[in-house]
Amino acid sequence: MEAFSTNPLLWIVPISGLVAIAVASYFAYDVLSSPTGTPAMQEVAGAIYEAAVAFIKRQYRTIALLAVGGMVVIMIVIYLFESAPGVSASELAIRTGIAFIVGAACSMASGIVGMFVAVKSNLRTAAAAQTSVADALRISLRGGAVSGILVVGLSLIGVFVMFVAYGGFEHPEQAPFTIVGFGFGASFVALFAQLGGGIYTKAADLGADLVGKVEAGIPEDDPRNAAVIADLVGDNVGDCAGRGADLFESTAAENIGAMILGVAIFAVTHDVAWILFPLVVRGFGLIASVIGIFTVRGSETKSPMSSLNLGYYITVALSIAGMFLVTNTMLNTKGAGIWFFYAGVVGILTSLAFVFITQYYTAGSFRPVRETTASSAITIAIALFLSHWFGEQWGNATGLPHGGIYGTAVATMGMLMSAAFILAEDTFGPITDNAGGVATMARASEETRLRTDALDAVGNTTKALTKGYAVASAALAAFLLFSAYLDKVAQLTGKPFDTVDLAKVNVFLGGFLGAMLVYLFSSLAIRAVGRAGAAIIEEVRTQFREHPGIMDGTERPDYGRVVDITTASALRNMIAPGLLAVGAPIVVGVLLKAEAEAAMLMVGTMAGVILATVLNNGGGAWDNAKKYIESGQLKDDAGKVLGKGTPAHAAAVVGDTVGDPFKDTAGPSLHVLIKLLATITLVLAPLFV
Amino acid sequence: MEAFSTNPLLWIVPISGLVAIAVASYFAYDVLSSPTGTPAMQEVAGAIYEAAVAFIKRQYRTIALLAVGGMVVIMIVIYLFESAPGVSASELAIRTGIAFIVGAACSMASGIVGMFVAVKSNLRTAAAAQTSVADALRISLRGGAVSGILVVGLSLIGVFVMFVAYGGFEHPEQAPFTIVGFGFGASFVALFAQLGGGIYTKAADLGADLVGKVEAGIPEDDPRNAAVIADLVGDNVGDCAGRGADLFESTAAENIGAMILGVAIFAVTHDVAWILFPLVVRGFGLIASVIGIFTVRGSETKSPMSSLNLGYYITVALSIAGMFLVTNTMLNTKGAGIWFFYAGVVGILTSLAFVFITQYYTAGSFRPVRETTASSAITIAIALFLSHWFGEQWGNATGLPHGGIYGTAVATMGMLMSAAFILAEDTFGPITDNAGGVATMARASEETRLRTDALDAVGNTTKALTKGYAVASAALAAFLLFSAYLDKVAQLTGKPFDTVDLAKVNVFLGGFLGAMLVYLFSSLAIRAVGRAGAAIIEEVRTQFREHPGIMDGTERPDYGRVVDITTASALRNMIAPGLLAVGAPIVVGVLLKAEAEAAMLMVGTMAGVILATVLNNGGGAWDNAKKYIESGQLKDDAGKVLGKGTPAHAAAVVGDTVGDPFKDTAGPSLHVLIKLLATITLVLAPLFV
Repeated sequence: MEAFSTNPLLWIVPISGLVAIAVASYFAYDVLSSPTGTPAMQEVAGAIYEAAVAFIKRQYRTIALLAVGGMVVIMIVIYLFESAPGVSASELAIRTGIAFIVGAACSMASGIVGMFVAVKSNLRTAAAAQTSVADALRISLRGGAVSGILVVGLSLIGVFVMFVAYGGFEHPEQAPFTIVGFGFGASFVALFAQLGGGIYTKAADLGADLVGKVEAGIPEDDPRNAAVIADLVGDNVGDCAGRGADLFESTAAENIGAMILGVAIFAVTHDVAWILFPLVVRGFGLIASVIGIFTVRGSETKSPMSSLNLGYYITVALSIAGMFLVTNTMLNTKGAGIWFFYAGVVGILTSLAFVFITQYYTAGSFRPVRETTASSAITIAIALFLSHWFGEQWGNATGLPHGGIYGTAVATMGMLMSAAFILAEDTFGPITDNAGGVATMARASEETRLRTDALDAVGNTTKALTKGYAVASAALAAFLLFSAYLDKVAQLTGKPFDTVDLAKVNVFLGGFLGAMLVYLFSSLAIRAVGRAGAAIIEEVRTQFREHPGIMDGTERPDYGRVVDITTASALRNMIAPGLLAVGAPIVVGVLLKAEAEAAMLMVGTMAGVILATVLNNGGGAWDNAKKYIESGQLKDDAGKVLGKGTPAHAAAVVGDTVGDPFKDTAGPSLHVLIKLLATITLVLAPLFV
Repeated sequence: MEAFSTNPLLWIVPISGLVAIAVASYFAYDVLSSPTGTPAMQEVAGAIYEAAVAFIKRQYRTIALLAVGGMVVIMIVIYLFESAPGVSASELAIRTGIAFIVGAACSMASGIVGMFVAVKSNLRTAAAAQTSVADALRISLRGGAVSGILVVGLSLIGVFVMFVAYGGFEHPEQAPFTIVGFGFGASFVALFAQLGGGIYTKAADLGADLVGKVEAGIPEDDPRNAAVIADLVGDNVGDCAGRGADLFESTAAENIGAMILGVAIFAVTHDVAWILFPLVVRGFGLIASVIGIFTVRGSETKSPMSSLNLGYYITVALSIAGMFLVTNTMLNTKGAGIWFFYAGVVGILTSLAFVFITQYYTAGSFRPVRETTASSAITIAIALFLSHWFGEQWGNATGLPHGGIYGTAVATMGMLMSAAFILAEDTFGPITDNAGGVATMARASEETRLRTDALDAVGNTTKALTKGYAVASAALAAFLLFSAYLDKVAQLTGKPFDTVDLAKVNVFLGGFLGAMLVYLFSSLAIRAVGRAGAAIIEEVRTQFREHPGIMDGTERPDYGRVVDITTASALRNMIAPGLLAVGAPIVVGVLLKAEAEAAMLMVGTMAGVILATVLNNGGGAWDNAKKYIESGQLKDDAGKVLGKGTPAHAAAVVGDTVGDPFKDTAGPSLHVLIKLLATITLVLAPLFV
């Protein structure tokens, strides 16, 4: 524990972890002790809760089984192929296996707790909306914050504990490599959580829309639609649980990747600060985010978005201060730490840029999709270039190696300092969406619904924003983890390995197959939504046909059957894309070897980042077109409003059914795929050398 | 001319070139002397002809201006930055400039002649269909063959003449580099021809469909639709002229790329056969294709597709024989030429595989899109891997270097041996499509229309098939041209340059921006179609409103105005994506330098090949879904047919309006972009070192 005395800032890690748990508990208590509204609302919310829990139970049981299978495979691979100085093969296998399963368990816990609190927050947000927008905002944001804070806190504590447990203070140059399994476990769970949840949510959504809005001509969230509960459940299991697992893995994988890069500088300076830096800066970011969330105060007159933005600016300002403190204390070799501060600021400003870009473009049609994709990609390119350049300046000033890539690592850490805030905003989205659904189904007053609608509109923006943030962080992290992979292969073979040469035919093929994997995976995910959606439509049609009383309101549809069908279909259909994502990099690595695997990772990441942005924004644009028509703003040449029920609206709903799985299933699953590629190559590197 | 005596097979180049011109002239004569049908047909065909010529004139004037501008820029760049032994800077600049403008002119000529004959063939095919499928098939295929044979013949002669004129027999190691400008000129024209034509054809198509089928509820090709002539014109200017220019550039660029790779082996063996091989094998391929086309005999009972397939098998068999002869004569160093024969067979079989894959998958919905993409990508990967491996075996047997990459070059040449046949089949598609339109608009007999419909269905398959073929050849060629680029940079700097290391940050960025370019370019192209289409819809609506007589058939719509609007809009909208495609690689190369440029080229190619396949096949699937509904095969639960006029049909038409620009504008333009990237980097390499 000498590290604590030489690096007193390290105390922020346990402290911020404890603060996170305390604040999350307080927020959960605050939400749960809020009023629960009318009996009608409670009934609707009860149905959502029940169905969501049922799905999560079945989903996580499936995932747990897959994770145990994955662990066994990993342990066998490590035992047979890997060796490290001073550790026996069996111990190495056991360590990696445990790290994997602990990572998987933490990720599952984050998903489950976040989803649980979110479902509970829906009802209370709807209840608060009966009287006040400010209260409704507070409850929905705090409900979301439980998830956001826990995810980041658990990931930080998890990585730190694994690091200490695997002798990080004794052999700091080895421990980061053994805890990669933790990141892989988290990725593994995130992949299936995001896939299963994403398929569920969009299948239910498009099923409900097509059969309700288009065929039967009834409004959104109408209680006569048998798919409406499944639709509301979908927001929770897809957006809350899935995204929670996704960001848990991001933060874990990026921490570990940055620590591995720190090892390279540690090897020269023998200063463990280079390895601990990512954890410390993450701790400061967590505290900054918590303070930011506390400062968000709703108002009856101001737009909720500006309250949220203010909180975010405070988080950013505190993050910059924290970054200055940490870089100047821990990375200030020969007084050149300021270069890393600059690199960190680049990362922090990148996150700010993404928040701006998303808000600016959320309100448009096709043009913005192109522009968002371009401006997102160019922002990432500039951030990567600048942070690398600043790191190189540090290298020039100190004469030490590996500065450039460490600069990128610092920027990535900077970008992720506000992760807890962003994630809170993200989970806020489905909570407000559900609150609106609860209010509509419980036939609440017009004013209540206006208030939930106002929050819901903000929620859509914050959801979009997190996706941009997640993509950007995935891109930065991939470059990081990619370098870590090169280091790992070099460590395994004992030979330098620092080029990935596309001019070799097997490397070119690896890259090409990486680009292909990204498309194939997305199309499988989209296809899964189509399949599950078709099953739902079939069921709702049957209910309408066999129970004519549903349409005139005298009979209650069987919501449960639709929920069951959606659950079974989502779980069945998440397996194929999931196994493809895990299997393809293994096959390519084994057949074409380590350098081709690196190309697969890199090109897959490039194509994946761009495709995810296109899918996220394209889907958003289709969604916006539909909302534009529904709001009555589209007019024909004669000035007649082309609103709901017109062919234009039907066409827009059809467009949205294409766009929905783009933005809420395939896009987010791609973020996870990118990071999974990175962690899988790191953990299974022994197979590829 | 000593080369002719040491390599007597070289005679095939001028011979096959002359044969090509003779056969193309004979086919053109045969088509033009066929009967021209009823006066009503002649009237319709006359309107199409007039409008197509008007568009091509305006388009090629614009392209010619852009090409002259491009030439000036290139000459300045070469003059300022390039140098080569024994040649002054000004001579180098003039040579490259002339090569560029000759390539551009040849490409324009191919496009114009092909389009001209195709437009003339429409009418004669419709006339022949009044009595016989076999005659209609003969005329439409021969009409298409004029274009196919001329494109390949002109490209072969063009490259050969440039090679001789630039002292290829005296300095064979230098000439291939100076004629790269020829390929660039061809690419440059192809890009704008494909973009302008692609925008025109799809804007007219979707405009006609949306306002006709969906809004007014009138059938396809109905004379009351003011956009119908523009739609028929579109098939000619997009599919004929655009694809002609595209394949002209493919064959030229791939010839040149393979010759440059030959220089590396020539440097060791001092045998010019390595540089001349691509031209010779191309000559044999041309003869094989001509014979294959002659053997296609229609029949009143057999499916036209099986007649075409038989002709293709004959072409393939003759190509294999030709490949055996050429590899055994010219590449048989130390008796190891058989390895290159194997590599060549890999290429020939790859083209066969693509023909099969496309035919197998042309009749499906979403699932095939994914499978086609995967099986296409895997076929390309296997072909690349195998041909490289065979080339390496040659290297092992002879102890000579560069065998692997030359194996890939041989496979690419093998794949392209049947280019003339494939291109004939491709142009056959729009001819039969137009013949059907002419028959419908001229209110020809039911039997006539059944015959043209049968041919049109085959035409759709052959069009799809060419796209797969074009993508695959682009992928193989890119790897080839990429190696040529590395050689060129090494020649310019005098230092070895054979790695493209993605682990460097600027190289990573180059790759990332390459992936971005591909998306941005596609979205600009799709957007252009939307813009032009909206203008058409506006105009047709106005005509319907202001001239109520159109709908009841008493008034003739103003087809000319729609044609004018489409022309102006297509030309205006092709500029932005075109300049992006040309500008982006220059900016990246200048800022991030040669290695990053290589990564942009490689990753752009990978992402582009996959995206083009997705766009081509996805668009095709949407199209098929529409046709499936229109054929009355879709039924609801109660067994009722959901045909034209139902919401399902309207939704499918909307889907097709998304899919159409995917498959006919963005996809084909991407093929051109990929090859343009390759030639632009080669020609402007001096800027990037």
